Amino acid sequence: MPVFKAPVADTLFILNDVLGIERYNNLPGFADATPEMIDAIASEAAKLSEEVLFPVNYSGDQEGCVRADDGTVKTPKGFKQAYDAYCEGGWIGLAVPEEFGGQGLPYTLHAAVGEYTSAANMSLMMYPGLTQGAIAAILVHGNDEQKQTYLPKMVEGKWSGTMNLTEPHCGTDLGLLRTKAVPNGDGTYKISGQKIFISAGEHDMTDNIVHLVLARIEGAPAGTKGISLFIVPKYIVKEDGSLGERNKVVCGAIEHKMGIHGNATCVMNYDEATGYLIGAENKGLNAMFVMMNEARLGVGLQGLAISEIAYQNAVAYAKDRIQGRSLSGPKAPEKAADPIIVHPDIRRTLMTIKSFNEAGRAFMLWTALKSDIAHRSSDAKERQDADDLLGLATPILKGVLTDKGFDHAVMAQQVYGGHGYIEEWGMSQYVRDARIAMIYEGANGIQALDLVGRKLALNGGRAVMAAFKEIGDFCEENRSNEAMAPYTKALKKGLNDLQASTMWFMQNAMAKPDNAGAGSTDYMHLFGLVMLGYMWAKMAKSAQDLLAAGDERTDFLNAKLVTARFYMDKIMPETALRKVRIEAGSDTLMELAAEAF
Amino acid sequence: MPVFKAPVADTLFILNDVLGIERYNNLPGFADATPEMIDAIASEAAKLSEEVLFPVNYSGDQEGCVRADDGTVKTPKGFKQAYDAYCEGGWIGLAVPEEFGGQGLPYTLHAAVGEYTSAANMSLMMYPGLTQGAIAAILVHGNDEQKQTYLPKMVEGKWSGTMNLTEPHCGTDLGLLRTKAVPNGDGTYKISGQKIFISAGEHDMTDNIVHLVLARIEGAPAGTKGISLFIVPKYIVKEDGSLGERNKVVCGAIEHKMGIHGNATCVMNYDEATGYLIGAENKGLNAMFVMMNEARLGVGLQGLAISEIAYQNAVAYAKDRIQGRSLSGPKAPEKAADPIIVHPDIRRTLMTIKSFNEAGRAFMLWTALKSDIAHRSSDAKERQDADDLLGLATPILKGVLTDKGFDHAVMAQQVYGGHGYIEEWGMSQYVRDARIAMIYEGANGIQALDLVGRKLALNGGRAVMAAFKEIGDFCEENRSNEAMAPYTKALKKGLNDLQASTMWFMQNAMAKPDNAGAGSTDYMHLFGLVMLGYMWAKMAKSAQDLLAAGDERTDFLNAKLVTARFYMDKIMPETALRKVRIEAGSDTLMELAAEAF
Repeated sequence: MPVFKAPVADTLFILNDVLGIERYNNLPGFADATPEMIDAIASEAAKLSEEVLFPVNYSGDQEGCVRADDGTVKTPKGFKQAYDAYCEGGWIGLAVPEEFGGQGLPYTLHAAVGEYTSAANMSLMMYPGLTQGAIAAILVHGNDEQKQTYLPKMVEGKWSGTMNLTEPHCGTDLGLLRTKAVPNGDGTYKISGQKIFISAGEHDMTDNIVHLVLARIEGAPAGTKGISLFIVPKYIVKEDGSLGERNKVVCGAIEHKMGIHGNATCVMNYDEATGYLIGAENKGLNAMFVMMNEARLGVGLQGLAISEIAYQNAVAYAKDRIQGRSLSGPKAPEKAADPIIVHPDIRRTLMTIKSFNEAGRAFMLWTALKSDIAHRSSDAKERQDADDLLGLATPILKGVLTDKGFDHAVMAQQVYGGHGYIEEWGMSQYVRDARIAMIYEGANGIQALDLVGRKLALNGGRAVMAAFKEIGDFCEENRSNEAMAPYTKALKKGLNDLQASTMWFMQNAMAKPDNAGAGSTDYMHLFGLVMLGYMWAKMAKSAQDLLAAGDERTDFLNAKLVTARFYMDKIMPETALRKVRIEAGSDTLMELAAEAF
Repeated sequence: MPVFKAPVADTLFILNDVLGIERYNNLPGFADATPEMIDAIASEAAKLSEEVLFPVNYSGDQEGCVRADDGTVKTPKGFKQAYDAYCEGGWIGLAVPEEFGGQGLPYTLHAAVGEYTSAANMSLMMYPGLTQGAIAAILVHGNDEQKQTYLPKMVEGKWSGTMNLTEPHCGTDLGLLRTKAVPNGDGTYKISGQKIFISAGEHDMTDNIVHLVLARIEGAPAGTKGISLFIVPKYIVKEDGSLGERNKVVCGAIEHKMGIHGNATCVMNYDEATGYLIGAENKGLNAMFVMMNEARLGVGLQGLAISEIAYQNAVAYAKDRIQGRSLSGPKAPEKAADPIIVHPDIRRTLMTIKSFNEAGRAFMLWTALKSDIAHRSSDAKERQDADDLLGLATPILKGVLTDKGFDHAVMAQQVYGGHGYIEEWGMSQYVRDARIAMIYEGANGIQALDLVGRKLALNGGRAVMAAFKEIGDFCEENRSNEAMAPYTKALKKGLNDLQASTMWFMQNAMAKPDNAGAGSTDYMHLFGLVMLGYMWAKMAKSAQDLLAAGDERTDFLNAKLVTARFYMDKIMPETALRKVRIEAGSDTLMELAAEAF
C-alpha cells in the first residue's frame, strides 16, 4: 500500500543549480559528473529503489531475521535477490577508487543516491552500508596486503563488513571496553569477548563477513589509549584469496528491536577468533573514527530518507482521504467530503516536513561535497577549509536530520489518523525504523557534545568562523536584492542568534563546563536551523535566477520560493527559543540531588 | 526489568495543598475526601498498580490478543486475573452514584488513581476505561430501565462497554457514517454495518459486552443530524436480567497495531444485530459526546501516565548506568565511570519530563475538579463557571498531554542509548503505547480545531476570559511577593503571548478561517504551556507557604521550587515561538496547489 518515488528532480536541482557541481570538475572523479551523467545515475538508482528495494521493505519488517541454533541467520524473503541487484549495479563501490573495483565517482553522488535506497529499504541498505564503512577504514588504515585481500570482494558485495564497538557495559565510553587481543606470535591475534548491537553481524547474503573489531591488546594502557582495531573475517582468507576455515566468531543472538527488523542486529561472541591488526597498535580509535564519521553522514541521511518516504505517503493519503469540508467552503463539492489536504493543519504538517526534507537534502549534499573536496582536492588550503566545515557539519547533520527525521515520520503518521497506527499502512514502520537513527553511531546527545565540546573550539574556532562568514557573506551579497529580502532577513536573524549563543558559550562555558553540556542539544538544533535556513536562502536565490533566465521548471521553482518563505516564517524563528534556553544555563539542571529525581 | 512506583506523595500535595480539595466538602461525595481518606485510596490504588497491573504489562505487549476463527478473542496471560482484582477493589465505580453500585466519590479521585493504573498497564486499563465511558453515557442519556439493566453489572465489572463510532471511510467526519438501524416495530432496531478500531470490542474477561453504537435510522437526515446511538449487547439481556441469546455482532478481525497490544482493537461486524435506542432519535452525537469528553480527559491522562512511567525508568537507568565522566570532574571516582545522571544533557532530558509530569498532573486534577464542580455543585453559577473551564481545558489537556507524553516517552527512551531500542528494556513499549493517545478520541489536530474553532468563541469567549482572569489575578495577588517573582514574571509573559495570539485570531480569523486552522496546533500548545506554567506558579506558592510554615517535606518542597524555576526558564519561553508562528498566518500554507506536494 505504501508508495515511493525517488526525488530525482530535486537532487538534480541541488547538485546542478544550487551547488554547481560542475565547477568542481577538476577534482578526481568529477569530470564524469556532468548533468547528463548525474541524471542517468540518479534515475538508475531511483529505478532500483522503487522497483527492487522498496517492494520488500514492508515484508522485511514483518518477517524479520531469524537465527537458527547453529548461529546462522536467515534474512527476510527477497532480501538476498534485492541485495544482489544492488551489488550488480556497482552501487557499493560508486565512490571507491577504481583500483579496488570501484567507479571512483564523487562521494556526493553516492550520498545522493543513498537517500533513495535508504528511503526505499533502510534495513536492507544497512548491509552494504556497513560494508562501505569498513571499506573506508581499510582504505585509510589497512596495509597493501589487507587492501588487496579484502577490498575488491567487498566492493563487489561478495563479502560484507561490520563495525564492532559496543559491549554490554560500554557504548559511548569506549575506554571501558574489555574485548581482548592476545598475540599469537606470528603477527596475528586471538580475539575474545562479546560485542552487542552489531548491525549485519551475521546473515545469508554474502560468502564472507569482514568484522572490524575494537579490542585491547594484552598489557595495553587502560582507557581509550589502549584500544586497537582488528580485522576478524568470518572465514579465514587463504593466501590465494579463497576462503578457508571458519573463524571462531559466532552470532549468539539477534536483538529483539523496535524496528529495522530486516537487519540482523547481533550479539557477536569472539572466542579466540583470529584477528589481524589494522593500523597501529593502540590507535584503534583513530581508525574507527574514519568509519564513524562517514557512518554519521550515512545515518543523518537515513533520517532524511525516512522523512522523505513518510512525507510522500502522507501526501498521497491527504489527497485521497476525504473527511470534512474546507474552512473556506467546499473544495470538492462533487464528493461527500473534501480531501484532507485542504485543511490548514494538515498543510502545516506537510509543509513542515517538505521544508525540512528539501533543505535537509541540500545540507546533506553540501556536506558530502565538502567531504569530496577535503579528500580529493590538490589544493591544501582548499582541503583544509573543506575538512573544517565537514567536521563541523557532521554532528549537526547526524543529530538534526535524525531528530527531525523521526519527528516527521511521527507527524506523517498523524496525517493518517487511526490508520497510521495500523501496521499494514506502513507508517508505523517508518516511525519505528527512524527511531534508531537518533541512537546509533553516537546518540544525538553525544553529537551535540561533539559539536559544543570539540568542534566549536577546534583550531581556535576556525571552522565555526568560516561557517559564519560563508552565511554572512551570502546575506551581504544579496543585501540590495529586494526579492531576496524575505529570505536573507530571516537568515540573518537566525545567524545572529547562533553567533550570540556561540559567544555565550565562550564566555560562560570555559569556567563552568556544565553550561556547555546544558545547552549542547539546543545549540546543535540552533545550528541546524541556521544551516537549513542557509540552504533555503541559496535555493531561493537559484530559483529566482533560473526563473528570471526563463527556465521551464516554473511550478517547481515557484514551489521552492513558497516553501522557502514557509521555512523562514514558521521554522526559522525557533532560533530565538534555542538561544534563550542556552542562555538560561545549567543551574536549574544541576541543582537537584540525584535522589530528588 | 522496568520499574514503577505510583507518585502518591505528589498526588497528595496537589490535591490537599495546591488545590485544597477540602474546601469543596459541601459537594456530594466530597465530605469523605479527607486527606486521610485520599491518602488511603491513593495508596491502595498504588499497591494494585504496582503489584497486580504492572507485572503483566510487558508480557501483555509481547503476547498480544489472539482471535480464534469463531470470532472469540483471548487476552494475554494474567490479564483476566488482574482485571478481576481491579473490579473487586470497586475501582470501576469509584465515582459512580451509589444507587448503581458505585462509591459516589469525586471524579477527581478517580482521575488521580487513573494515572497510576494507566501508567502500570495502559492496555489492560482500557477495558474498564471503555466501560466507564459507556456508564457515563447511559447515566446521562439512558432511561431508567436501561440504567437498571446495564449499570450495576458494568459497575461491578461483570459486563464491559465499548464505543463504536469509526467506520473504514469515516473517522473525524461522523456525518459520513453508514451503519444503519432498521426499526423492528417493537421499539428495537436491527443494526447492520462495520465498525473499526473498536477498543475492547471482544475479549474473554466479562460475561457480556455492552456496545454503544452510532447508526443511522432508515430515512434519517444525511450528515451528523441523522445519527442515533444504540445499545447493542453481545448477549441479549432477558427480563430477569440473565443473559439470553447471542446477538448478531461479531469480531471480524483484530487490528495489527504499533502498540497497546494487550488491548483487543477490533473490527466489529453488525449483521442485523438487535439494538436499543439510547437518548432521542437523531441525537446520537450528543449522547456520544458525553462519553467522548470524559474519554478525552482519560486519554490526556494516559499521555501523562506513560510520561511518568517512562520518566521513572529513565531515572533508574541514569542512576545505574556508568559511562564517561562528569564535565566538572569525577563524581564517582571509585567506579570506572560516573553514573550518567551527572551529565547535563541527561539532566536536561529528565528535568524536561519531570517539570511536565508534575505540572501535567496538577492540570489534570485541576480539570477533574472542574468536572466535579460542574456536575455536583448546587450553585448554578458555580456549575456554569466550572463547566466553561472544563470545556476549554478538555482539548488542551487531551492534545498537549498526549503530544508531550509521547515526546517524553521518546526522550526517556533516548536516555537508554541502544538499550532503549531493545524491547526487553521496556522503553519501546512506552513509546509505542503512548503513540495512540495522540490519535484516538479525536486526533490532536481535531482537539486544536475544537479549541480554536469552538471553545474560544463559545458564549462570547466567556471561558477563555475566565481563564485569563484567573491566571492574571494570581499574578496580581503575588505581585508584591519577591520570592514569587521568578515564577509570576515568566507566567505573565506567557499569558501576554497567549492573550495577544487570542486577539490575533479575533482580528484575523473571522474573515479568513484558514488563519485559525493554520495556527490551531500552535495555539493549543501555547495554551498548554501557560496552563502548566500556571500550575507551576501555584505549586511554587504552596511550596513556599508550606516551607515557611515549617512543613517537614523540605526536600520534596525545595525540589518543587527548583523544578518550577526550570520550567519558567527553559520551557515557558516557547510561548513566544508559538505566538510568532500563529501570527505568520496561513498564506504560505495554502499557496501551493495540491500537486506541488
